[in-house]
Amino acid sequence: MTVPESTVTRAIEAMRSESAIIERISRGLANSRPFRYKVDRVRLGIGDDAAVIRAGFLARGVLGSDDLVLSCDAFLENIHFLAKVHPPEAIGYKALARATSDLAAMGATPQFFMLALALPPSRTGAWLDSLIKGMARAAREFGMTLIGGDTSENATAIMNMTVGGEVAAGHALTRSGARPGDGIYVSGTLGAAQLGLELVSRGLHRDRRWKRLLEQHLRPKIQLELGKWLAGDRIRHSIASAATDTSDGLSTDLTHICEASGVSARIFAAQIPVVSLPTSLARHRFDPLELARHGGEDYQLLFTVPAAHKHRIPKSFYGAPITKIGEILHAKSGRGASSIELVGTDGKKTRLVPRGWDSFRVASRGSKR
Amino acid sequence: MTVPESTVTRAIEAMRSESAIIERISRGLANSRPFRYKVDRVRLGIGDDAAVIRAGFLARGVLGSDDLVLSCDAFLENIHFLAKVHPPEAIGYKALARATSDLAAMGATPQFFMLALALPPSRTGAWLDSLIKGMARAAREFGMTLIGGDTSENATAIMNMTVGGEVAAGHALTRSGARPGDGIYVSGTLGAAQLGLELVSRGLHRDRRWKRLLEQHLRPKIQLELGKWLAGDRIRHSIASAATDTSDGLSTDLTHICEASGVSARIFAAQIPVVSLPTSLARHRFDPLELARHGGEDYQLLFTVPAAHKHRIPKSFYGAPITKIGEILHAKSGRGASSIELVGTDGKKTRLVPRGWDSFRVASRGSKR
Repeated sequence: MTVPESTVTRAIEAMRSESAIIERISRGLANSRPFRYKVDRVRLGIGDDAAVIRAGFLARGVLGSDDLVLSCDAFLENIHFLAKVHPPEAIGYKALARATSDLAAMGATPQFFMLALALPPSRTGAWLDSLIKGMARAAREFGMTLIGGDTSENATAIMNMTVGGEVAAGHALTRSGARPGDGIYVSGTLGAAQLGLELVSRGLHRDRRWKRLLEQHLRPKIQLELGKWLAGDRIRHSIASAATDTSDGLSTDLTHICEASGVSARIFAAQIPVVSLPTSLARHRFDPLELARHGGEDYQLLFTVPAAHKHRIPKSFYGAPITKIGEILHAKSGRGASSIELVGTDGKKTRLVPRGWDSFRVASRGSKR
Repeated sequence: MTVPESTVTRAIEAMRSESAIIERISRGLANSRPFRYKVDRVRLGIGDDAAVIRAGFLARGVLGSDDLVLSCDAFLENIHFLAKVHPPEAIGYKALARATSDLAAMGATPQFFMLALALPPSRTGAWLDSLIKGMARAAREFGMTLIGGDTSENATAIMNMTVGGEVAAGHALTRSGARPGDGIYVSGTLGAAQLGLELVSRGLHRDRRWKRLLEQHLRPKIQLELGKWLAGDRIRHSIASAATDTSDGLSTDLTHICEASGVSARIFAAQIPVVSLPTSLARHRFDPLELARHGGEDYQLLFTVPAAHKHRIPKSFYGAPITKIGEILHAKSGRGASSIELVGTDGKKTRLVPRGWDSFRVASRGSKR
């Protein structure tokens, strides 16, 4: 077994253009942060073997210290996006947004990111420039600095994002703090991103009437301010007992909270803030509740709040509605102890099984494709 | 344009088996650290939206604080390894070793890592178990804890490693500190990994006589202890003025130091610790000096030392020889200011151009393939 010549040649060409690509990434993402509101934590950024963060500055003596929050997320062509369908600017924006949504779910303030990028040579020109532009826009919005990365050639595009932020020590919002009696809340509307994905998968995304329905799928808004507010800080108590982002779909994400917390949940179909569909889509028979229950990638926050704090939850936060959809119950005994009961609009109770992407398969198989 | 059904189905299957795969990764890499020699920095590890590091513990009051060192590195099938040639255990080991070598090059003590893993479904069984086993061995050796990650399905295997460590504040070894008059040193031998790669690429790797020559290519030894010693700490001064790891090959890596430091360099061919070749390989006409000058992936440390510290450099460190190969000179003027002069065994001076992988192409095109 020999290494195919083409592999070697491709690797060589990648090496040759690597410094040029790094140069463009650095320039395109330089000084992404709009302003530096605190002492800069980055001692050494891109251009060396690794980045250096002044962890000492995170500890602020008598005022207490901050924790560092880290997450990584792969964004892969043909799995998470399609180069022929999705604009590169949206791919770049979404790559950073979906990774940073995990920081929002922890209540952390984003600080920096690293980008491990692999690309086919055919997409190292204008396509890459648009990708960088979209990513730079996300970095500015979230207040993040590029501190490092890695570039390589590959047959398909790969973006691996490592994101870092900070939260007051001990204030990170975990999935494991939900207790019986806590209310279950969600921000924004659910099913919007799934609707966008299904419009794309059914080839309906080029119809101008439905263009705005693609936004949450293409350029998801993430809930950073809400996450920070729910986590509190050393002056202000935490409001939420548990939180996660709706990346896999309500049924799966709420199951994560229930399993991590060792509790069950009851939610009410009539209270779920489902995506609203224009009448022009009527004949395509989308089911908003189905989209909301199992559709992924909304990047809203799903969180639980103890009864003592419920009066502090506003109707909306930075423009996004906040809706109570149910309550946390004691765990049942035996298998499926962390189950979710869905009370239908007719009052009928069913079990909500975590299905995430499965609903998409069911929906698309039921369609005319 | 519609999303291909196969893409959707594959994504669904990946989601279904995802929790099972995460469970196996967690179990296989749990408690990788052999002992906890300091207060544990990981407040929250795998299983939530992100990991939480107690940055406050990195700052230790009157004794000064530590900096956090972060790096990321993609290890891609068909680009960096071949699933049909390389054993999965070696792939797992090398994925973490090559990323952690960047921490060695900064003088940092490794602490934690995140793994973003994408795999074809056909390799989620025994292949994955071997991969995890190799990675767990590396994690134990380096003293690292898995704190998070991401799993996905993909047509080829992808490992994105994010590694983190710590170094005494301000002690990180950068590429930019080399000054005229500093000696240039390298650990170990150069060209060993390139030789292994070329044996593989020429289909010679299955010959038992040459099995041991594959080791640095398959399971590279990295120079963590040397890096830490060169960086010093708050009690002990730094010894090296600049450092990097030999991941791209001597010609390229030394160019990185020269460019970052704004200096030139002179190295002596006779002093380069080239890989030694067994006589059994004679007819394959490998050129040890060529392998050493441009061959990548040795993961040795290349570093510069001010004349005042040269008496402190031992002949070997933890079993690896330390060799002085040249000296740092003032930058020349104009283009190519950071050039490298190579003094041949005959005393003839030539310019060493950064070629990295290029030499491999030249070498392999010159071979019988």
